[in-house]
Amino acid sequence: MQQPMPIVKQASVMVIGGAEDKVHGRQILTTFFQRSGGTEATIGIIPCASREPAIIGDRYRTIFADMGTKQIEVLDIRDRSEGDDARWLERLAHCTGIFLTGGDQLRLCSLMADTNLMHTIRVHAQLGKIALAGTSAGAAVMGEKMIAGGGSGESPSRALVDLSDGLGIIPEILVDQHFHNRNRMARLMSAVAACPDRLGIGIDEDTCALFEADGTFQVIGKGTITIVDPQMLAHTNYTEVEPNAPLSIHNLQVHVLCPGDRFNFRDRTLITS
Amino acid sequence: MQQPMPIVKQASVMVIGGAEDKVHGRQILTTFFQRSGGTEATIGIIPCASREPAIIGDRYRTIFADMGTKQIEVLDIRDRSEGDDARWLERLAHCTGIFLTGGDQLRLCSLMADTNLMHTIRVHAQLGKIALAGTSAGAAVMGEKMIAGGGSGESPSRALVDLSDGLGIIPEILVDQHFHNRNRMARLMSAVAACPDRLGIGIDEDTCALFEADGTFQVIGKGTITIVDPQMLAHTNYTEVEPNAPLSIHNLQVHVLCPGDRFNFRDRTLITS
Repeated sequence: MQQPMPIVKQASVMVIGGAEDKVHGRQILTTFFQRSGGTEATIGIIPCASREPAIIGDRYRTIFADMGTKQIEVLDIRDRSEGDDARWLERLAHCTGIFLTGGDQLRLCSLMADTNLMHTIRVHAQLGKIALAGTSAGAAVMGEKMIAGGGSGESPSRALVDLSDGLGIIPEILVDQHFHNRNRMARLMSAVAACPDRLGIGIDEDTCALFEADGTFQVIGKGTITIVDPQMLAHTNYTEVEPNAPLSIHNLQVHVLCPGDRFNFRDRTLITS
Repeated sequence: MQQPMPIVKQASVMVIGGAEDKVHGRQILTTFFQRSGGTEATIGIIPCASREPAIIGDRYRTIFADMGTKQIEVLDIRDRSEGDDARWLERLAHCTGIFLTGGDQLRLCSLMADTNLMHTIRVHAQLGKIALAGTSAGAAVMGEKMIAGGGSGESPSRALVDLSDGLGIIPEILVDQHFHNRNRMARLMSAVAACPDRLGIGIDEDTCALFEADGTFQVIGKGTITIVDPQMLAHTNYTEVEPNAPLSIHNLQVHVLCPGDRFNFRDRTLITS
């Protein structure tokens, strides 16, 4: 396969909590545009999470065109078999930035998981050849494990969260989005009890975890990012109880990060400036 | 002042997350009845948090009478000056259990704080001469600092929580109630950032922290209790930022406890059975 000539200034994976500003300062989307190479970028938009892919694809196309992107591809894949299609792989080869829109994370995974297209995106993102961003459903899929759905307004329990497989861009993280906006702390803690080898990351709306190649991420945007780290987990009854039973989860480390804060997600330490 | 003859079997303070079962198993209320001395108890009901104190007072009177309590007093104080009234102090002297109902915690504090009645209740509870229980607003007042109100569905911020002074029964705790039911994790974390010398305790509905004289509490009821411990707090921007700005709160220890779990709130350790 032909390799793209990377013109990305600084490789990064951007995990966005949904509802990012599309009208005013557009801080998060502008950062993605810049990380993709600015006016020299070729941006690929993947609207597959949405049930209205043409509409949402056009919406982002307009935004990135407004910023000055000359080359924009909407990879509007409607059938799983298209993910191995040479036509899409060729277009992908020219992309310096890929943007995964919101919608339904299960829909996105069912169309994209284990396709050549997704494999290429993952490798290019991990090698820093492209900037990759995902918002809402497009953020949920970033880990190897994914929160597919769940509830709020109840005690933490196994039934409060539905887990499935994500796209594994950053395997070790377990992402939740629209985080405090939709009151998802109880479901993220429940998810982390199920997957204590992962790092829970709850991202508020219009807020982004900007992952760099050095194993750190920085918070940008308007809200907070909540880290739920089960590294020191002392006990959970997760595997022993009925789905609706209240959970016991002992010794989580929790950090609330505001814009400007940085976190090393490999050694799980805060970087104070 | 004449001291009551304590017939309490095992002194305790019960902090209840609201909406405790009043109809079926009544586990929490039955525990309070037993801790107050069972059929030999004299139970005092303080309905001052409520705007309908006569109705709520009668409701609990009926429940405790059904259980077999022979002596029940409703201390329906409508004016702050009554809190120093010899008539109420005399009735209190005979009580072996005191129950604080729900309603508005600011109303309860404005009627009861710094009265002789409240002083006597606090001393008797701390000496283990009475069993003391509070539900919802009656739970919120247990600490020296109190969450008076706040919001949910937003990033943690100073504006997300209103703090004031509680009744200081267990000074070191900062209680939130209806906890996961009303999605209050963001407000409790915000409160703990403001009061890092306290221990945040979020109690779900129909769930109770049963504090014993040995510095431990046990979880009883149906839901979870969430401990937010800022003992190891590494950094917060709480004192530096605007009220609506997102907070940075680094290094909280969080435990989700289910019924049966025990926690030592003095040395902040979990007790595994």
